[in-house]
Amino acid sequence: MFKAIVSASTLRDALDSVSVLVDECKIRLNEDGLAIRAVDPANVGMVDLSLDAAAFESYEADGGVIGVNLSKLEDFVGMADSSQLVELELDEETRKLNIRIEGLSSTLALIDPDSIRQEPDIPDLDLAAEIVLEGAQLDRGIKAADMVSDHVRLRVDDAEEAFHIQAQGDTDDVDFQLDAGDLIDLTAGEADSLFSLDYLKDMNKAIPKDAEVTVELGQEFPVKLHYRVAEGQGNVTYMLAPRIQSD
Amino acid sequence: MFKAIVSASTLRDALDSVSVLVDECKIRLNEDGLAIRAVDPANVGMVDLSLDAAAFESYEADGGVIGVNLSKLEDFVGMADSSQLVELELDEETRKLNIRIEGLSSTLALIDPDSIRQEPDIPDLDLAAEIVLEGAQLDRGIKAADMVSDHVRLRVDDAEEAFHIQAQGDTDDVDFQLDAGDLIDLTAGEADSLFSLDYLKDMNKAIPKDAEVTVELGQEFPVKLHYRVAEGQGNVTYMLAPRIQSD
Amino acid sequence: MFKAIVSASTLRDALDSVSVLVDECKIRLNEDGLAIRAVDPANVGMVDLSLDAAAFESYEADGGVIGVNLSKLEDFVGMADSSQLVELELDEETRKLNIRIEGLSSTLALIDPDSIRQEPDIPDLDLAAEIVLEGAQLDRGIKAADMVSDHVRLRVDDAEEAFHIQAQGDTDDVDFQLDAGDLIDLTAGEADSLFSLDYLKDMNKAIPKDAEVTVELGQEFPVKLHYRVAEGQGNVTYMLAPRIQSD
Repeated sequence: MFKAIVSASTLRDALDSVSVLVDECKIRLNEDGLAIRAVDPANVGMVDLSLDAAAFESYEADGGVIGVNLSKLEDFVGMADSSQLVELELDEETRKLNIRIEGLSSTLALIDPDSIRQEPDIPDLDLAAEIVLEGAQLDRGIKAADMVSDHVRLRVDDAEEAFHIQAQGDTDDVDFQLDAGDLIDLTAGEADSLFSLDYLKDMNKAIPKDAEVTVELGQEFPVKLHYRVAEGQGNVTYMLAPRIQSD
Repeated sequence: MFKAIVSASTLRDALDSVSVLVDECKIRLNEDGLAIRAVDPANVGMVDLSLDAAAFESYEADGGVIGVNLSKLEDFVGMADSSQLVELELDEETRKLNIRIEGLSSTLALIDPDSIRQEPDIPDLDLAAEIVLEGAQLDRGIKAADMVSDHVRLRVDDAEEAFHIQAQGDTDDVDFQLDAGDLIDLTAGEADSLFSLDYLKDMNKAIPKDAEVTVELGQEFPVKLHYRVAEGQGNVTYMLAPRIQSD
Repeated sequence: MFKAIVSASTLRDALDSVSVLVDECKIRLNEDGLAIRAVDPANVGMVDLSLDAAAFESYEADGGVIGVNLSKLEDFVGMADSSQLVELELDEETRKLNIRIEGLSSTLALIDPDSIRQEPDIPDLDLAAEIVLEGAQLDRGIKAADMVSDHVRLRVDDAEEAFHIQAQGDTDDVDFQLDAGDLIDLTAGEADSLFSLDYLKDMNKAIPKDAEVTVELGQEFPVKLHYRVAEGQGNVTYMLAPRIQSD
C-alpha cells in the first residue's frame, strides 16, 4: 500500500538527485518515508536519498519496494507547475503507479525491482576533514577544474585552514582556495583525494546552488557529500570513490 | 494589384498558423482580405486562414493569387519588431513582393501558384460535440499525451460532461480530463476519435496559449480546431483526419 | 615583467574583439598598455586592439610579448562575474600567465610568440566616406543581408546622403537604407564595396549594440570599422578586404 501527496518541486528535487547517477532505481516505501539507494553501473558513485513522511502533504505506506524508470517518472512529475501537488498511488494489482496532477491522470508501469541493480551499502567512513560550504562555491570550483582537466583534487590544507578544489591539466592548472572565512564550517584534518570530474559534475547538477553542502574528505579515500532537501525533511548523501593519484 | 500595411505581430501570427503545416502556399489577395488554404503533403492536416482587410492598417487588393515560400517570407517579416509596421506591395511586372520595414526594403521572388499543391476543400462536417477551451489547456493535454504515445484520443464523455485528451502507450497511459467547469464551453455529444500527435503538435505550436480554441469533434471523424487571430479580425481553422482506432 | 588588475568585463570585451577572428595571438605588453594585432588565416580580416593602461585598475609592463590561446584565456576570465577583478601576472621563468579571481588561481601556459602568425601591418587608407552609426544599426543591416546572400555591399549614396547595406541573392534582395538623420554622422563620398558576410558577421558579434561605430568606406577598397572599448580607454579597429564585384 502506498498513497501520498507531495509538492511537485519537492518530489522533483529529490528524484533529480538520483537520476543524475542512474536511469532506474528501487524506491523503498517505508512507513516513515521514501528511501532510495543506488550506485552507477561502474560502481564509482552512490546516492542515498531519504524523504521523510513529513516532507509530504499526506503519506501512507507499509514498507513495499517498487522499481521505476526515473526519466519517465520525472517526465510525468514535470507536467506539474512547481507549486502544484502531485498525488501518487500504487495499484498493487496491476503493479502500476497512478500519478494525478489537477485533471491529469497518468499511469506509469513499474519495473520488477529484482531486475534493477542491487542497492549499495554505503559504508560508514571515518574521514579526517569536514567542510561545509554553499552549493554555489562547490559549483564554482568544479567549473574551474573542468576547464583544464577531467579529474579534480579535493584537499584540506591543515596549516592554513583552507579547502582547495584543484585540477592539473597537461599545460594549465587551477586552484580554487576557500579559506575558513569563505566556508560555512571547517574541521581541518589531513585530507587529499583525487576524483573523476564527470561524476562530480553530475552530482553537482542536482545540488541546489543555495544548499548547505557538507563534504567529508580523507586521504585517498572516498568523499561524501550531503545536503538537506524538502526544507529539511529529506537528505541526500553522495559517495564517490577516489582515483589513484599518479604523481 | 496588392498593397497593404500591417503590424508585424499580426502578420507573423497569421503566417505561423500556415507554416507549421506547409513550406509553400498560395495567398489569395481578395478585395476583403487575405485568405490561405493549404494541406500537408500527406493530406492529413489542413489549414484555412482568413485575415480581414480590417486586420490591416491599410489594405488594397483586387483578387489576385500569389505563391510564396513561407519560411523566406517569415524571415523577412521577422526583421521587424512586433510593434513595427510591415508594408507589402506586389510588383505585378517582376512577380516579386516588396516588403518594407522602417528603412529596410526587401524583395521576395514569388513562386508560380500553379506549381504549388492545390488548395483543399475543407468540408462542412456535422460534428456531435463542440468544446471551447484555452490554448494553454490544449497544450497541456498534448504535452501529456506526447510522453507516452505518438497518437492521441480526443473524447467527450456524454455522461459526466467532460472532455478527455488521452493517450495509451505500450506500458503507460495518460488521461487529461477537463470538466465543464474547466472549459469555456461544452456542447456534449457522442464523440471519440484518434489522431496523430505529430500533426496536433504542429498545429498546437501556432495556437496562442491565451487563444479561445473551439474543437469540433465526432465519432471516428476529422477534428476541426478554430480560433480567432488579429484581435478578432482573422480566423484560423485546422482540420485533422482521424487515425483508425485499433482496439 | 607584467602585472595588471582589470575588471572582468573590460578584459572580456577586449579579448572578444580578437577571438572572433583568430584562435591564437600575440599580446604586446607595452609600458602604456596592451596591444594586439592579428589577421585571420586567409588574410581577409584584420583586428587592431589597444587597451590603455588607464583601462586597468593597475598596470605594470616593460614591453614584452606573449603568445596566448584566446579561447583558453577567455574561459579562465569567464570564471569571473562581470563586476569582479581579474589579476594577471606573467611568470617569466615558467612562461606561464597567472590569473587570479577572488580565491581562484589559474595558470595558463603561454605559446611561443614565434609560432604565431605574424602581426599584420594595417595600412593607412584614404577612404572617401565615413559613416558613424550605432552597433545595433549595423547589426540590423547585417542580419537582413544574411537572409538572402553570403556577401554584402556597403555603399554611400552621395546624392541622397545615405548609407546602404545591401545584398543580392539569387532570387531575393534587401536594401537597408540609413539616411543622414538615422546616422550619428556621415561624411558622404563616392564609396561602394562588396564584402564577405562571414567576416562581417564575426566582427559584428564582438561589436556592442550600443557602441558608436565608425565605418570608413571607399570604392572597391577595404573597409575599416572602429569603436571604443573600456569606457573610451581602448580602441578596436577592424579592416576587411573587399570582394571583387562581378556585375
